[in-house]
Amino acid sequence: MKFDAWYTEPQTENLSLSTKLKNILYVGQSKYQEIQILDTYEFGKVLILENTYQTTERDEFIYHELISHPALFTHENPKKVLVIGGGDGGTVREVVKHESVEKIDFVELDGMVVEVSKQFLPSLSCEIDNPKVNTIITDGIEYVAKTKEKYDVILVDCPDPVGPAAGLFEKEFYNNLFKCLNDDGIMVQQTESPLLHETLINKIKGHLKDAGFPVIRPLVCSIPTYPSGFWSFTLASKKNDPLTSDVNEIQDKLKNMPTKYYDQDVHKGVFLATPRYLK
Amino acid sequence: MKFDAWYTEPQTENLSLSTKLKNILYVGQSKYQEIQILDTYEFGKVLILENTYQTTERDEFIYHELISHPALFTHENPKKVLVIGGGDGGTVREVVKHESVEKIDFVELDGMVVEVSKQFLPSLSCEIDNPKVNTIITDGIEYVAKTKEKYDVILVDCPDPVGPAAGLFEKEFYNNLFKCLNDDGIMVQQTESPLLHETLINKIKGHLKDAGFPVIRPLVCSIPTYPSGFWSFTLASKKNDPLTSDVNEIQDKLKNMPTKYYDQDVHKGVFLATPRYLK
Repeated sequence: MKFDAWYTEPQTENLSLSTKLKNILYVGQSKYQEIQILDTYEFGKVLILENTYQTTERDEFIYHELISHPALFTHENPKKVLVIGGGDGGTVREVVKHESVEKIDFVELDGMVVEVSKQFLPSLSCEIDNPKVNTIITDGIEYVAKTKEKYDVILVDCPDPVGPAAGLFEKEFYNNLFKCLNDDGIMVQQTESPLLHETLINKIKGHLKDAGFPVIRPLVCSIPTYPSGFWSFTLASKKNDPLTSDVNEIQDKLKNMPTKYYDQDVHKGVFLATPRYLK
Repeated sequence: MKFDAWYTEPQTENLSLSTKLKNILYVGQSKYQEIQILDTYEFGKVLILENTYQTTERDEFIYHELISHPALFTHENPKKVLVIGGGDGGTVREVVKHESVEKIDFVELDGMVVEVSKQFLPSLSCEIDNPKVNTIITDGIEYVAKTKEKYDVILVDCPDPVGPAAGLFEKEFYNNLFKCLNDDGIMVQQTESPLLHETLINKIKGHLKDAGFPVIRPLVCSIPTYPSGFWSFTLASKKNDPLTSDVNEIQDKLKNMPTKYYDQDVHKGVFLATPRYLK
């Protein structure tokens, strides 16, 4: 008999996803949460927080390309970007690919997630020490409430709305994001599953509308290790609409930008593919 | 302690998906396969063939709307449709929604799947006895090899390429589909996961090209109970391209057609959203 160990995440009360383990590389407890790095046969190395899949080496390109490029290519010339959460560094890595970007403020609550990712997930965390990246270990909710900085793009790479992350889905947070964005600013947030969390997605849409964003567009994709695998992000923009972006311009810029998922067609496709029942 | 029973599908050697059971409604063995109907908390009633999730009441609308409407709306006036597989009846139900369709030949290998679906999954099988539907219990591979019939649209609602279904992914089958389609005919097949079966998807594309189809377009979506949840269909057309369809015309026709997922934006979005690495 061969060694046969599995990690199982109870994704809802009635659904769980299990993946076969090569090894458990790290188990630690930060001030905020339990952190694990697993080595798995199906997904490569996987980051687990509070017994919940966060990201995997195999499919992280889907999440990180789709949280970042649709906004960064909808904006005409993004220079200053705020990334909230995403301690693994995958989102920051995608933002760094944009030559126009001069500064990235990277606000993560849990410094231990950043350190563990630097050690175990170098393909994600590889740009955290880039000179354009200013890592700030603090609560993103407080940061946007207090800062006087203004950004072109804000990407909210947040966990599920439980515990300290609950406030990242509340009215006040969206009002503060609006305040922190320039007049042509754009934000994107991961906004859970269109199958399991339709009510939450509609609540967020309401908050974004109340905050004053004239353009609000959900986008959908597959994130294999998240509950149901059917996932959404929501983009809110003060001016430009991704559906009217010039795809030829995007295609030109992509010639020198390595992406695996995102291209000029995906730019509009992920928004257009949003199901009728979410519109 | 409460009763706590789970059904687990080993989706790959290294990945499994488990769902909590209310009840096991049916277990039977046909000439071809083991058939089960489970009642689950997360997905409602679920059809299992050979220990593999086929369809669930909760999310079947995604699969059945996306295998059918993109082709049926790309064709200008589909009258005669062939559905291969899909014994649960979900695909046939969507085709019946199109008023232009006069006849549907519904070719399913395993008559027992049709009977069990009629008994336990009425929301899927509800149109199988529609007078427009001609149910033929036979092997789809043999059917398209021998028939003299010509179709406007052929939908291949097939299981994974193992056992008797393997031939549904071979060169000869695609040549026969081409032969059975009118000069403006269109076919769609479910073509597995872009994450797990990239090689297969590219092989199918090659076969379709060799068969003579000038327009070949993969589309992507989320099917929560399939391996990785990230799924694809491939459309091949002799004339019309879904990316140049008139979306206003589609919108008009949809006014009187109840769909949950598909609309005129989804029509192009699911094709455009196909990842860069698949193009």
